[in-house]
Formats: sequence, C-alpha cells, structure tokens
Amino acid sequence: MAVLHHYAFCPHSRFVRLSLAEMGVESESAEARPWERSEDFLQLNPSGTTPVLCEDDLAIPGATVIAEYLDETRGRALNGRRLLPTDPALRVEVRRLVEWFNVKFFEEVTSYLLEEKILKRFQRGASPDASAIRAARANMRYHLRYIGYLAASRKWLAGDTLTYADLAAAAHLSCADYLGDVPWDEDEHAKDWYARVKSRPAFRPILVDRVPGMVPAQHYADLDF
Amino acid sequence: MAVLHHYAFCPHSRFVRLSLAEMGVESESAEARPWERSEDFLQLNPSGTTPVLCEDDLAIPGATVIAEYLDETRGRALNGRRLLPTDPALRVEVRRLVEWFNVKFFEEVTSYLLEEKILKRFQRGASPDASAIRAARANMRYHLRYIGYLAASRKWLAGDTLTYADLAAAAHLSCADYLGDVPWDEDEHAKDWYARVKSRPAFRPILVDRVPGMVPAQHYADLDF
Repeated sequence: MAVLHHYAFCPHSRFVRLSLAEMGVESESAEARPWERSEDFLQLNPSGTTPVLCEDDLAIPGATVIAEYLDETRGRALNGRRLLPTDPALRVEVRRLVEWFNVKFFEEVTSYLLEEKILKRFQRGASPDASAIRAARANMRYHLRYIGYLAASRKWLAGDTLTYADLAAAAHLSCADYLGDVPWDEDEHAKDWYARVKSRPAFRPILVDRVPGMVPAQHYADLDF
Repeated sequence: MAVLHHYAFCPHSRFVRLSLAEMGVESESAEARPWERSEDFLQLNPSGTTPVLCEDDLAIPGATVIAEYLDETRGRALNGRRLLPTDPALRVEVRRLVEWFNVKFFEEVTSYLLEEKILKRFQRGASPDASAIRAARANMRYHLRYIGYLAASRKWLAGDTLTYADLAAAAHLSCADYLGDVPWDEDEHAKDWYARVKSRPAFRPILVDRVPGMVPAQHYADLDF
C-alpha cells in the first residue's frame, strides 16, 4: 500500500490527501515534521518539503509531481471522474489553477499564515510577525474574489466537473479557515463553492485535524457555515 | 504557428525557448513586459507572468504547464529524444528537478538577481538591494554543488538522456551567468555539464540575448569558458 508522508497543516499535503480520497486510492499515512530536517526524510525528498508519496520503492515528492503521477497511474480508470480531464484545453486550465494555488496563493497567503501562526509555535522564542499576517489577509481578499469570479461563471473552478483545481484551492483555504482567516462574507459565490467541496466525504478527515493547543475557528468543521 | 510571449531574461521563458528548440517546434516570438501589467497580457495569463505559449486559440501559461502540454502534444513523436521520458520513475525525477529549478532555485537565486540587477533598471528611483544579492549568491553556491553532485553521478541531471531537468537548470543558470553570478570554478562537474548544454544548437539564441546598456559577463557566450 502507498504511504503518504504529510503534515496535517501543510496545504500541499492536504491537496494530496483530498486527491487520494477522491480517486479512491487507499494509503497509509505517516506524519512528517519537515522543519526537523531529518536525514531519513531528506532521503525521500532532498528539498525537505511535504508531501511525499511512497509506492513500489518509488518516492514521489511534491504536490504537483504526485498529482501528475496519480493521473498517469490511476486517471484513465476514473473516466468522467478524472481529476485531470482528457480535453487538452481543460488540462491546461486545471494545471494553471493548480499552480495558481500551490505556488502563488501559497506564496502570498498560506505560507505566511502557516509560518507565523502555526510553525512559530514550535520554535522557541519565536513570535508571530504581525505585518506578515496583515499581508496574508490583504492578499486573501483578492484571491477570494478570484475564486468567486471562477465559481460564478463555472460549475466547478476549472469547468463542469470537480478537478485538481478545486482540491488545490480548497486545501489552501481549509488551512486558512482553521485559523479564521477567510472572510467568507465577502464573496457568496466562493462560499457556496467551498461549502460544496467541504461536504464531500473526501474532506472529512481534514475537518477533524487539530493543531495541539490551538482550537479551530468555530465554523471550521461546520458544513453549513 | 505557435507564438511564445516571453521576456529575454525570464528564466522560465528561457526554459520554454530551449524546450521548443530541442523539440524542433517552430514558433514566433513576442516580447512581453510583465511588469507593465497590460490588460492584453493579463487576458492571456491572469497571474501576469511570462511565458505564455499561444497555439490554436489556446493560451498556455507558465513553464510547467507549457512543458506538460508540449510533452502531451509532441512528446511521443520524439521517441528516445523525449524530454519527459516514458519510464514512470524517470518522469517523477524529471518533474522533481524541473520543480526544483523553476520554483526553489527561482525563489532562492534567480528571482533576487533578476529583480535587483535587471528589473530595477526599469524602475525610476529604484536601486539594487545588496543584501538580496548577497543572499542569492550564497544560495547559488549550495545549488551549484547539488548540480555538480547530480552531474557527477549521471550522464545528464535526471539520467541517461537530456530532459526538461537539464533545460530548466541551464535556463536559470544562464540568467545568473549573464550577470557573472555563477562561481564555475567551485564545481568542475557542474561546469562540464553546463558546457555540454550550452554548446547545443538550441542554446544559441539565448547566448545572443542582451540587456540594453548591460554587457554580459565576459565568458557568457564562450563555449569554452
């Protein structure tokens, strides 16, 4: 069975957990603590980041690389439920949006929130940088509008079916939502779309994740928020 | 014919130019100036970054998305010269390294050099931040050792054949090399590997690129540096 090395509040890990669940791929899960930079983990992924999927003696590091691998090994059997659909224009759009969330949104929003609000709890003497959190919140509003714009013009973010694009966006938003940093009231379309993704069975394990000593925002696990 | 919207000193653009040339795909080229954020360009790529490849009414934005698209539309016909080889483990390794250079190396090295040394020339009143340049140079040394380590144990960076991994690494290094910021003397294996990539016909157009008013490092276009 495949093993996913992941960290519960790493949005890239959540993206892969959602993808595996939507595809019906069973896997074992192993908690990684990338900030400890253990030799064993660097052997699996020299860049030292989560997630890493291990299958058949192959270590597959990084959300994008794992998504391509899963599509190549399982995609065809999923037919209409394929998360990277066969149409060339749709493949471009799904990949564009996955990159948007996994790289741009991460750089502009989730990486700040994760570092300042969660990872610094594990660093002795570190305190959150308020200006980084303010920047993340300002950037969030612009990204939420973009998600709302996509959700208003399409059934799912990339088109008519659920794809990797929805899972990448929802993975990042779910991390920010735990921290109470998604202003849902500002965009009805984004909120409706997220409620649909959040209510999928694949999302359940993510809604029970907890940072030790840190209570999630009240609506975090509420499907009718 | 496909049109590539690119900027000469954008490493992601160079990666796609090299890929198109290695694949024998003819394309027209259109200079983009992403920092001007023109409406026309944002229509092609909402994230506002280069490169964008346009073909058959489809705008394909971003180096990784373009590489996957080119492999899916042209890869099979290339057989043994395919830049993303068919073996699953090799596909993982090529994609891991492309991400290493296009995301990690970019964040840690080329984005600083590009911003401080080139883009600030076009911003009235901006002056280069010496500490950012120092950080880029320090990070470069560690990346150069990693390239040397790969080049010492394999014929090309990902394995026995030239792949996207070599083109991504060489694209980023070529931008830094123009600025004289690659300490080639520190790693013989990295230098030998780069000399091999640099001497390929696909590399010629990149060696004649010039920043107006900025002379390249003396050895920039020298194949025997």
